[in-house]
Amino acid sequence: MKKLLILLLTFTVSMSFAQDKKPNVVLMLADNVGYGDISAYNLGARGGMVTPNIDKIAKEGLQLTQFLVEPGCTPSRAGLMTGQYSIRNGMSMIIAPGASGGLQEDDYTLGKLFKQAGYNTAYSGKWHLGPDAKNHPQNQGFDKWLIGFKGSTDGVLYKGKMADTGMPQQIIDAATIKLWEADGPGEPKVIGDYDFERRLSIEGEITERAINYLQEQKNEDNPFFLMVGFTRSHFPNDVSEEFKGKSGAGKYGDSMYELDYRTGQIMDAIENLGLDENTIVIWISDNGATITSTALDEVNIGDNGQFRGELGDAYEGSIRTAGMIKWPNNIEAGTRTNEMFSIHDFLPTFAGILGEKLPKDVYFDGVDQSDFLTGKQEKSNRDHLITFIGDRIGCVRWNQFRIYPMLVNRTGNNPSNGGYLGTTEETMGFPQVFNIETDPKEQVDVLPHGASWIMGPYMKIVAAYKATLKDYPNPPAPNLTKF
Amino acid sequence: MKKLLILLLTFTVSMSFAQDKKPNVVLMLADNVGYGDISAYNLGARGGMVTPNIDKIAKEGLQLTQFLVEPGCTPSRAGLMTGQYSIRNGMSMIIAPGASGGLQEDDYTLGKLFKQAGYNTAYSGKWHLGPDAKNHPQNQGFDKWLIGFKGSTDGVLYKGKMADTGMPQQIIDAATIKLWEADGPGEPKVIGDYDFERRLSIEGEITERAINYLQEQKNEDNPFFLMVGFTRSHFPNDVSEEFKGKSGAGKYGDSMYELDYRTGQIMDAIENLGLDENTIVIWISDNGATITSTALDEVNIGDNGQFRGELGDAYEGSIRTAGMIKWPNNIEAGTRTNEMFSIHDFLPTFAGILGEKLPKDVYFDGVDQSDFLTGKQEKSNRDHLITFIGDRIGCVRWNQFRIYPMLVNRTGNNPSNGGYLGTTEETMGFPQVFNIETDPKEQVDVLPHGASWIMGPYMKIVAAYKATLKDYPNPPAPNLTKF
Repeated sequence: MKKLLILLLTFTVSMSFAQDKKPNVVLMLADNVGYGDISAYNLGARGGMVTPNIDKIAKEGLQLTQFLVEPGCTPSRAGLMTGQYSIRNGMSMIIAPGASGGLQEDDYTLGKLFKQAGYNTAYSGKWHLGPDAKNHPQNQGFDKWLIGFKGSTDGVLYKGKMADTGMPQQIIDAATIKLWEADGPGEPKVIGDYDFERRLSIEGEITERAINYLQEQKNEDNPFFLMVGFTRSHFPNDVSEEFKGKSGAGKYGDSMYELDYRTGQIMDAIENLGLDENTIVIWISDNGATITSTALDEVNIGDNGQFRGELGDAYEGSIRTAGMIKWPNNIEAGTRTNEMFSIHDFLPTFAGILGEKLPKDVYFDGVDQSDFLTGKQEKSNRDHLITFIGDRIGCVRWNQFRIYPMLVNRTGNNPSNGGYLGTTEETMGFPQVFNIETDPKEQVDVLPHGASWIMGPYMKIVAAYKATLKDYPNPPAPNLTKF
Repeated sequence: MKKLLILLLTFTVSMSFAQDKKPNVVLMLADNVGYGDISAYNLGARGGMVTPNIDKIAKEGLQLTQFLVEPGCTPSRAGLMTGQYSIRNGMSMIIAPGASGGLQEDDYTLGKLFKQAGYNTAYSGKWHLGPDAKNHPQNQGFDKWLIGFKGSTDGVLYKGKMADTGMPQQIIDAATIKLWEADGPGEPKVIGDYDFERRLSIEGEITERAINYLQEQKNEDNPFFLMVGFTRSHFPNDVSEEFKGKSGAGKYGDSMYELDYRTGQIMDAIENLGLDENTIVIWISDNGATITSTALDEVNIGDNGQFRGELGDAYEGSIRTAGMIKWPNNIEAGTRTNEMFSIHDFLPTFAGILGEKLPKDVYFDGVDQSDFLTGKQEKSNRDHLITFIGDRIGCVRWNQFRIYPMLVNRTGNNPSNGGYLGTTEETMGFPQVFNIETDPKEQVDVLPHGASWIMGPYMKIVAAYKATLKDYPNPPAPNLTKF
């Protein structure tokens, strides 16, 4: 039965660029889009909330139904950028306003890998990997940060909420988030305030600057690596007049409509500039949707499909989301796989594709999936994944089993206290075990039903991770509650 | 945005049979298969539990992502067979062992419609529309009941459970379910016991007899209408040695594997007999999966995708399930629609396709969808659906809104008391309202958020239904608890 599925995945094996220019790479990274928010995943079952432009990338490439991430913006982006579990770089929690941490000078990043391979590199949009200049893209392997800001989009709410609570103007001004750009290393230039008004236009600005970059790159000798950090569907999901009511599916639907529209603009630019034949396009979300821990009028609107959980917890809906890869002449159009592919795998995979050596003094948790992507091997190189929350292991995935050493709960009837704002509950000493394939909603703990043998591989995975800490010790984990 | 989706649905408009022989129809009806149990719906996210043969029907035809049914085997099959809400025929609850009721002599049925149109007709498999001969397919418009039994497959558990509890052999014998066949009207012939052993082979027998019928029909002058009432994935889902471990996804997965395999055998027979060009194939499930109210070792194994609820309640997971229609030369391969299509619509739709007049003294709740199916119109003719449970309205669907006059709950911590074994809870007088498109899990009651205007269309739908009762009064609703 499994073979049949695999037969459907008949990739073209030849890598077209071997004798040619290295492929350009455009990686679009959405913010908090859930597995059930994209019509390539929900089959259009959300009425007017459809995403034809995003779906088209899946139709023209490979759709991953098991794209695994870390449970929050900072952790997941850290995993993407470094190829390591976020805990190895002290980013296993969302970086809160006022907190430090983030990418450090000596961290090896996806940007640095592409520079090493001779690429021009740029980043447009949300970053969320540290507040200071040293943490920023322009100092982490990207030639330019086309446009960006500190932290996350909920920061645009501070000004209004602070005024509501009578804070003095001086404090309000200090808390206002700046919009930045950087043409090269060093400090970014302030180009405005990222406030509620600007939130309405930001996706267009991120897209416009990305497209300008594509135009500049058309005649460059070097290949390019462009990352686009979209801000949608992170709350608040308010849209400009241009997009209001466009989806017929409310504010969140309109926000998804804009995200899809911006994706389409970038895809059109790639095509119109004649870049599509030699450009790898990746479209992923950083983590599952927020369900409870969001603006009150957006509670329960993002959707993680058939999976439980939300951004911040370690359940499947938090760490499985949309992921698709288009690579003309190397990945056959319209393929789909349920093999595991994690966000950490991109860095080693690109090292594999580009034939670049990775530094020896870094432990990479990501695995090289290039032979899997190009069909040289049937199976993914990944059979497990550890999910960290702060300094704790929140879940160990091994084959079809998810093993939880701790639980994350919603807090009583509080509608906005689940996921990253939830509470934890300790087990009696035995982890809970779920079979995500037979039981997608993780409702039956199979441990007492003949599954305690799974403790073997589970402990082995944890032990192997712990063994790496001897040579590669972790920095202190981020923490806002334990003093 | 909606237009874009519709553009994808470019059906071929011409009906190929107009100048030719009327199309044969093979309608396969699965038992309790949930929206998330079929890989055409879950995109293969359940690992080894994939359904390539069933998916192929969707790939070669039209996949309905909003195929709506009634919340249980008997009600849904009554709706399919009569084109009416089940409450109009006293079948708005699952017929329990020992209970009477079911299709009556003067009921108009799908079988009778096809006879009226000059078809040969046959039914193979589970029926569940009444215990007595007068209720059976051979007396309800089908020339033959190729193989069948009384009630439902959980009856195969009686013998063992009764022996466990020390019942005398005489009572055990009386409760043993018989396997039947009927070559024509009247009483069926007993061909064996439908017990636990026979459950393991029944799907093969139903399929074999269906295929024999197809072979017989190949050279008949009349077109034929064959219905196949599969028994899977109704509990118990035990399989024979041939299928054990085939899916790698446990007992339920193996059962789905067999269901898919049997579907493939029937599709192969249609093709090998050269019947495929002029045969409409329909593959549907009767209702959502049982989640709690099933054999203890199958609790939480069936999956209703992103929707809450299960067989027996009025939530989306109970009444939205898999449905696909293949009609070469009339429905373009690989189309998909999220327009509403309900199980009641098949009877009026086939009347439309075949140009047959329906009786005037029956009120049909189903609507003729033939122009929608063949692409003559973009939109479905259905914008609402009432879900009945016993003598109550459990839900009114109108456009994207689901309006609940009552709730169905699980009973405390009892793992097997939800759905049709759950309990009801009354509202304070206001129904709960959910937008199934923006909120697929029905988590936010939108009534207080500017949606109380929906009470208008809601009351109008109920009033229109009630108005029909003057000329078409309902028989007493089935009832096992209120005396």
